[in-house]
Amino acid sequence: MTETPAFPSRLLRGYTAFRDQRLPQESARYRILAETGQRPRTMIIGCCDSRAAPETIFDAAPGELFVIRNVANLVPPYDPDGEYHGTSAAIEFGVMGLKVRYILVMGHGRCGGVQAYIASRDAGPNAPEEPSAFIGKWISLVAPAEQLVCESPEDAAGRQRALEFASIRQGIENLRTFPSIRNLEEIGEIELHGAWFDISTGELHILDQATGRFEVAKG
Amino acid sequence: MTETPAFPSRLLRGYTAFRDQRLPQESARYRILAETGQRPRTMIIGCCDSRAAPETIFDAAPGELFVIRNVANLVPPYDPDGEYHGTSAAIEFGVMGLKVRYILVMGHGRCGGVQAYIASRDAGPNAPEEPSAFIGKWISLVAPAEQLVCESPEDAAGRQRALEFASIRQGIENLRTFPSIRNLEEIGEIELHGAWFDISTGELHILDQATGRFEVAKG
Amino acid sequence: MTETPAFPSRLLRGYTAFRDQRLPQESARYRILAETGQRPRTMIIGCCDSRAAPETIFDAAPGELFVIRNVANLVPPYDPDGEYHGTSAAIEFGVMGLKVRYILVMGHGRCGGVQAYIASRDAGPNAPEEPSAFIGKWISLVAPAEQLVCESPEDAAGRQRALEFASIRQGIENLRTFPSIRNLEEIGEIELHGAWFDISTGELHILDQATGRFEVAKG
Amino acid sequence: MTETPAFPSRLLRGYTAFRDQRLPQESARYRILAETGQRPRTMIIGCCDSRAAPETIFDAAPGELFVIRNVANLVPPYDPDGEYHGTSAAIEFGVMGLKVRYILVMGHGRCGGVQAYIASRDAGPNAPEEPSAFIGKWISLVAPAEQLVCESPEDAAGRQRALEFASIRQGIENLRTFPSIRNLEEIGEIELHGAWFDISTGELHILDQATGRFEVAKG
Repeated sequence: MTETPAFPSRLLRGYTAFRDQRLPQESARYRILAETGQRPRTMIIGCCDSRAAPETIFDAAPGELFVIRNVANLVPPYDPDGEYHGTSAAIEFGVMGLKVRYILVMGHGRCGGVQAYIASRDAGPNAPEEPSAFIGKWISLVAPAEQLVCESPEDAAGRQRALEFASIRQGIENLRTFPSIRNLEEIGEIELHGAWFDISTGELHILDQATGRFEVAKG
Repeated sequence: MTETPAFPSRLLRGYTAFRDQRLPQESARYRILAETGQRPRTMIIGCCDSRAAPETIFDAAPGELFVIRNVANLVPPYDPDGEYHGTSAAIEFGVMGLKVRYILVMGHGRCGGVQAYIASRDAGPNAPEEPSAFIGKWISLVAPAEQLVCESPEDAAGRQRALEFASIRQGIENLRTFPSIRNLEEIGEIELHGAWFDISTGELHILDQATGRFEVAKG
Repeated sequence: MTETPAFPSRLLRGYTAFRDQRLPQESARYRILAETGQRPRTMIIGCCDSRAAPETIFDAAPGELFVIRNVANLVPPYDPDGEYHGTSAAIEFGVMGLKVRYILVMGHGRCGGVQAYIASRDAGPNAPEEPSAFIGKWISLVAPAEQLVCESPEDAAGRQRALEFASIRQGIENLRTFPSIRNLEEIGEIELHGAWFDISTGELHILDQATGRFEVAKG
Repeated sequence: MTETPAFPSRLLRGYTAFRDQRLPQESARYRILAETGQRPRTMIIGCCDSRAAPETIFDAAPGELFVIRNVANLVPPYDPDGEYHGTSAAIEFGVMGLKVRYILVMGHGRCGGVQAYIASRDAGPNAPEEPSAFIGKWISLVAPAEQLVCESPEDAAGRQRALEFASIRQGIENLRTFPSIRNLEEIGEIELHGAWFDISTGELHILDQATGRFEVAKG
């Protein structure tokens, strides 16, 4: 590649809008949180999906949310010798370094990662070679969630959603395989939560951990 | 812990504000992007830091940004057999599945991950045992960036910023170790960019890949 | 002194009671908070007085309260070059290191420190030489609080209490002279509170910062 | 911040529990000690750490312990013109005003203050500027204790504990630089003691001043 490309104009326009409109109202927050360090009370493990941005959905101010985003908002089980260090390192940073109080595993509808898992599962061994070097392995983390599916709808869309729900339940279970998290939850110093965002309607569904069901958020 | 905790009230209030104010203006976007699928043109690899949310800084609408967030916005080098699958899987998903046109490696000032790398590097062998099971290994990905430091300021804050800059340059180099990305960039189908957000002033510094310098965004 | 004294038997008995009765119920908290580090959400600046122990009065579990205790629960004004580093260092440690959310200045009735200040003030310049090398200087920190006295009771006991109240108000004002605290309070990340414990009745009086009055705690 | 925040609910609940359960059993103690004044026989110089509350560990009743708490339970050397008046004033108040018989310097494991001292010592001149205005100076009081380290363990945790022990020895030495304390100890009117609390196991280690060793408390 010879000449270097200009910075994407859409991003530049977006930044200018931020700088001229929102920044003036929050410049104090930015300056102060730069000087004193961030102190978020909530960590969110969300999906990279462009339609499910936690700061947008929770109308968050700078400094409020420590956000990990990977494909399908997956939480690997605790495995210090394992292959999923990126997400586990971020979880550890939030729990030990930032001492967050709340951890939210946040899924969403029509998740491409969950869809890819279902496709490869259904295609089975005769499937055409997966051209992927990484995705296939990563989404295999969804598999254990199959055990936690509660609903059994007729249609494929419903079945995918049931697995999206189950994967959030599984993510919370996996968080509990981290000794520090399990221990801090045991003494009431950390709370684990689950939620699912319906990207087509904007509804937020909250996991009721007593019933295992997801209920539409009131309020 | 026996009884299940209520959903954090701050998050619920934030969601209600989103649902009552922003959602009505963007419900069409959400509905249509749910039906047709997301088609973001930009992938951002950013940091989990609560003060550096890409959607906020780029004033992004739902569907515009595919966002990966890990500690210190690191891009692992291409390594199909390696240990950093989470981020690599998301990069692959964005490039192959979503066909993004722009990839932005976005760092920020006073990054706790870079700071932790510097501290462990300087502490050396006498350092107290790192109680971390994951962070230490993850931030070791910063090390190669030391070669790409351009500035040599007097003070520690300046030295950290110089390494934050270098780590962005390294991230872009690492993106080019992915065969698909290198090839697509070569034929002008993908552009790689770097930026650094000053969390104390809200200034965006853009990497000029011709000079290797970061310049404050005009516009 | 020749032979070394045995450890005070009263303390030993007290520890044995703790070890045999309370520790078994809280051993998990101790072990977990040792492994993960403390994460108190409240910092209390209290008096050394033996009748006003914060953990007792707030029935606190291990790990809940970060507690500074000095004579008359005084908060020195911010003065990096000044002489009161002990308390200021502890305040800084709680705010910056532990990221506490609440700071409570807690006074109490019949405070010997406030009493000593009043005695030396009333004795005036003709007072017999204060034999104290430190106390006189330390309690001089009470003086500015005279401006914040609201009540004007007849009797000496009432006047001392009014000054104890005022000294708590002054302590909160002095906390606001710490740039980090003033800033974090401004953006709602830290709350400052005041309370006064009546050691003769066990009543807790809470400062209503809207009216400046102390009201008996309900609940 | 405009509106005044409500008193933290956790503290209010804790006070209510104290008022309804413990206070009724000790109301006589509180009333009498209010009328006659406090007469604690023991002064404890402890750490602000939320996991090392003296009243809890010694199961103390109201009026028993006069408690000074600062970061790392440090005793400054006698220095009437010096900068550490807060702690020295409290020591003087306890010895001269309250006529305590026992002075206990009480340390604990995994002390953040001692850890901060070690970190800054090891980081050396290359260390990032200490953003602290007070902590750095305060913990420099730990330095002389390096001379009194007896153990030389392999691991960092053990080395920190050895320094925590030494700092307690140093604190007792510093108490003896106060003329009144040195004199009163000489004629057997005051006893100086040291102890170290293991926050992970709840074990109390008592300093044997004949051997200089810390032994687990029996009894």
